[in-house]
Amino acid sequence: MSLLQRLSFNQMTADPWTLEQVVRNCSSSGISYIGVWRHKLEGGAAEAAAMIRSEGLTVSSLCRGGWFSAPTAAERRRHIEDNRRAIEEAALLGAPVLVIVSGPANGQTLSDARATVMDGLMEVLPDAEKAGIVLGVEPLHPMYAAERSVVVTLQQANDIVDQLESPAAGVIVDAFHVWWDPDVMAQIERARGKIVGFHVSDWSVPLPGILMGRSMMGDGVIELRKLRLAVDAAGYTGPIEVEIFNDEIWKNADSGLLEFTQQRFIQHV
Amino acid sequence: MSLLQRLSFNQMTADPWTLEQVVRNCSSSGISYIGVWRHKLEGGAAEAAAMIRSEGLTVSSLCRGGWFSAPTAAERRRHIEDNRRAIEEAALLGAPVLVIVSGPANGQTLSDARATVMDGLMEVLPDAEKAGIVLGVEPLHPMYAAERSVVVTLQQANDIVDQLESPAAGVIVDAFHVWWDPDVMAQIERARGKIVGFHVSDWSVPLPGILMGRSMMGDGVIELRKLRLAVDAAGYTGPIEVEIFNDEIWKNADSGLLEFTQQRFIQHV
Repeated sequence: MSLLQRLSFNQMTADPWTLEQVVRNCSSSGISYIGVWRHKLEGGAAEAAAMIRSEGLTVSSLCRGGWFSAPTAAERRRHIEDNRRAIEEAALLGAPVLVIVSGPANGQTLSDARATVMDGLMEVLPDAEKAGIVLGVEPLHPMYAAERSVVVTLQQANDIVDQLESPAAGVIVDAFHVWWDPDVMAQIERARGKIVGFHVSDWSVPLPGILMGRSMMGDGVIELRKLRLAVDAAGYTGPIEVEIFNDEIWKNADSGLLEFTQQRFIQHV
Repeated sequence: MSLLQRLSFNQMTADPWTLEQVVRNCSSSGISYIGVWRHKLEGGAAEAAAMIRSEGLTVSSLCRGGWFSAPTAAERRRHIEDNRRAIEEAALLGAPVLVIVSGPANGQTLSDARATVMDGLMEVLPDAEKAGIVLGVEPLHPMYAAERSVVVTLQQANDIVDQLESPAAGVIVDAFHVWWDPDVMAQIERARGKIVGFHVSDWSVPLPGILMGRSMMGDGVIELRKLRLAVDAAGYTGPIEVEIFNDEIWKNADSGLLEFTQQRFIQHV
């Protein structure tokens, strides 16, 4: 498979488009994979799956499960149930991977929250195994520790996946989240055989914002090629998701966006 | 020394005040230490030192040296010279510690920039040793990796200080920069005998911004007490700097700020 064929267009890169628009535009641009978000599944996962399949596309991952930490047992229980639904949706979509964003401390201490994440993963792991879905533990950049994810390094994700010890548990390497880490190359190598996703975008200077901080590949300082070669060398040959939350890209998302994304992907990834 | 006596007021917490105002206000509030920034040394370090001493205050640290990485040898040379001046200024001020902010990649690759930081530290270390100044290597939060510091974890700072192997090299633990790190408690313990500063502020949700993101202790999610006890347990008994860059605090910096800072310090640190 050529590098370009590995490109998966995560639908959040073109947030203003409906899922159907994303799918049709990808299809006519020769993009074979898309990354899907649950809140975009208008009309349910089964219908979306049929529509995606009819256009010849494959879902690389469904985002997201996780968000396990909560101050009360009842709330944690609801989160577990929601993860079970997410696993079912991933199965319906034919997505091999459910992206796990662990969630913030959410009123707990960091270490309690981290323990809750581990408990939550252990609880839903059998469901993932039965469904043939891999839980892709994605460390988020430490600047999201307070609001989105107490899992913040690839080392931590590797530790979790080692403990889960199951074919249904892997790690996702998102360049935006891990590029700064002095240990990233060693941890990518350590993740050999456990990498179930590679996501790309860029870190521009100055950063446009915290939650909307990502840029198109080539517009920032991340050594994307180096990271991609490391992920390749660790044996990952699957789709590479372009996932960019960026107000300017969203405002200007037109028919040229996919071609531009493909160009930048080839040049920088 | 009581906890409150360890409070050092970093002058950037009240940016609108002149150095003399900070010193006088600290003096009348019973604060014994201040953290000084080089760009605030109006009239030179010797005069500032005399003024600070006449008010009975002690400088806990001078900020900052470092910023070693640069694409050209000539620019790196200028940075080295600037670090030598910073060491001299620290000596004039009686500051035991020069805070080292390593600088961003600045056009180099991350690994080249990190090597440049090590080279720079090795080059100025003899000057620090002669002057009796400790270079305090401060890891910055990974969200500053692109703009301010390629040194982003306490593990990395510990590795650097281990390599420098000198009484003139230590680490600074800034709660805002390291709180998210799953390895922080182990790295604080590892830094035993090498901790030369502890800085506090808070991480509020949502974060007000990237460069101006800090908040008053108690307004955020950092487990400050836990970190302070860990730093204490690792043998650090020196001043604890309150260093907050926050537009609201700057706008409203009046005579009540120091008392408020002291209250929050006692409650949360």
